[in-house]
Amino acid sequence: MIVTVTLNAALDVTYRVDALAPGATHRVTDVRTRPGGKGVNVAAVLTQLGEPVTSTGFAGPELGARLPGFVPIAAESRRTVTVVAHEATVFTEPGPLIGDGEWRALLTRFDRLAAQARVVVLSGSLPPGLPDEAYARLIERCPVPVVLDTDGTALRHGITAGPALVKPNVDELTRLLGRKPDLPADCVSLGVPVAATLGAQGAVLATPDGVWRARPPAAVVGNPTGAGDAFTAALARGVAQQRPWPEVLADAVALSAAAVLSPVAGVYDAAAYQEFAGQVRVEEG
Amino acid sequence: MIVTVTLNAALDVTYRVDALAPGATHRVTDVRTRPGGKGVNVAAVLTQLGEPVTSTGFAGPELGARLPGFVPIAAESRRTVTVVAHEATVFTEPGPLIGDGEWRALLTRFDRLAAQARVVVLSGSLPPGLPDEAYARLIERCPVPVVLDTDGTALRHGITAGPALVKPNVDELTRLLGRKPDLPADCVSLGVPVAATLGAQGAVLATPDGVWRARPPAAVVGNPTGAGDAFTAALARGVAQQRPWPEVLADAVALSAAAVLSPVAGVYDAAAYQEFAGQVRVEEG
Repeated sequence: MIVTVTLNAALDVTYRVDALAPGATHRVTDVRTRPGGKGVNVAAVLTQLGEPVTSTGFAGPELGARLPGFVPIAAESRRTVTVVAHEATVFTEPGPLIGDGEWRALLTRFDRLAAQARVVVLSGSLPPGLPDEAYARLIERCPVPVVLDTDGTALRHGITAGPALVKPNVDELTRLLGRKPDLPADCVSLGVPVAATLGAQGAVLATPDGVWRARPPAAVVGNPTGAGDAFTAALARGVAQQRPWPEVLADAVALSAAAVLSPVAGVYDAAAYQEFAGQVRVEEG
Repeated sequence: MIVTVTLNAALDVTYRVDALAPGATHRVTDVRTRPGGKGVNVAAVLTQLGEPVTSTGFAGPELGARLPGFVPIAAESRRTVTVVAHEATVFTEPGPLIGDGEWRALLTRFDRLAAQARVVVLSGSLPPGLPDEAYARLIERCPVPVVLDTDGTALRHGITAGPALVKPNVDELTRLLGRKPDLPADCVSLGVPVAATLGAQGAVLATPDGVWRARPPAAVVGNPTGAGDAFTAALARGVAQQRPWPEVLADAVALSAAAVLSPVAGVYDAAAYQEFAGQVRVEEG
């Protein structure tokens, strides 16, 4: 079983409007809501892959009704509102304030799930009220390998606790280093295995066993939201199955490209994934 | 007591962002929520005026926790999202679907409240599931005068039931007539007393007893949202107190102008209202 943890889960709301005009009043023609947050999307991809997965994190009253495995919190979880016209415009609320007792309840839930897991995935930002070291605390107490996908100080502290793999994109690496990254050298220098996503240029994987690069098999155009979460899902499955690193990287690049072709985060285009799976070329060094 | 009815009440959410850029992702720096909808705002203004008021309508689970006098419904009430940057951009969700049993529960609640009221105010749009004649049904069974502020077919049907007063703005009159209104002739032709708001030009009141015009005492600049609801609140109080029509009109124009100076719908600038109250000139004919 793979466990995904989403400490700052969200209710993702999508509004469809005819056109977005700043300063105007818009009648929303269609409203869709779904549970969101990176770890929730990773779990959805793993489920589509047929992998047993359990998802946890924090959820306020409204979101909790749709995420029963999550630790209930008093405050409402944040919403993200995506206004879809010709383009998608996104508004992300700040997260809910987490109390000390809620954090302790999460640790208890985490310990119970991690004891049954082969891999744990920690994804996304930390809500207010948690220490910057929250991911480091989870990694330290986790008996199985951890894949970490976060940003900023949460990433910086998490790396010190020795996760099995971290998955930054170029923006996150830039913020971590305080400058434009030099790849793969900067990945190697982090001291933990790093799978860095480079958008259309594919990905770099730097581990003590070697460094590999892979490019997507085709220039895919579509919805980049959720491509990183599909990438993380493939990494987690590969680590759980103890597959060789180059195979894990190739699979993650193929699945991520197939996710770009899906309009919904947490879902990949299964036919495209099957097609891409044999086509990703991995180069060493 | 004045009773206000808001069949399509909303949770009004305000997002503050640094700047609105279509196609971009925005971190919301501040989230505010308050119960909204025209009748809710009218009740707030009446409360600020010191008038006893009871507010009812439909409210879903989340909104109902903040509007205890409302009839509970299974669906969540709609939200409005106002994104405030340099200007305010508004997104209004469609209303919740109302079931037959919920409509019957509203009628029961309405009859009990209307029996104790001096005036009833019916405000805003009808949510899905209600008949177009919903306001007409409420007016027919109401033992006291009704002030009606709505739009489209709900307004058309409501007028046939003989409300004490209707309060369209110019856009609503244009939709009702199918052309630009000729004032005050078109108000007289509706066959019921009409108080039509004309924005910065003030208002026209057409009744069987006479026709009057009034202009605001000063060119007020600010937040026009809620000015119409303050106007309606003053009309309802005037009808309840059986004050002469020209006095009612003057008071409504003064209160509406004082509401423009307040940043929040449902609140007026009390000092400005006191100043404006003696300054509105009413002309007959």
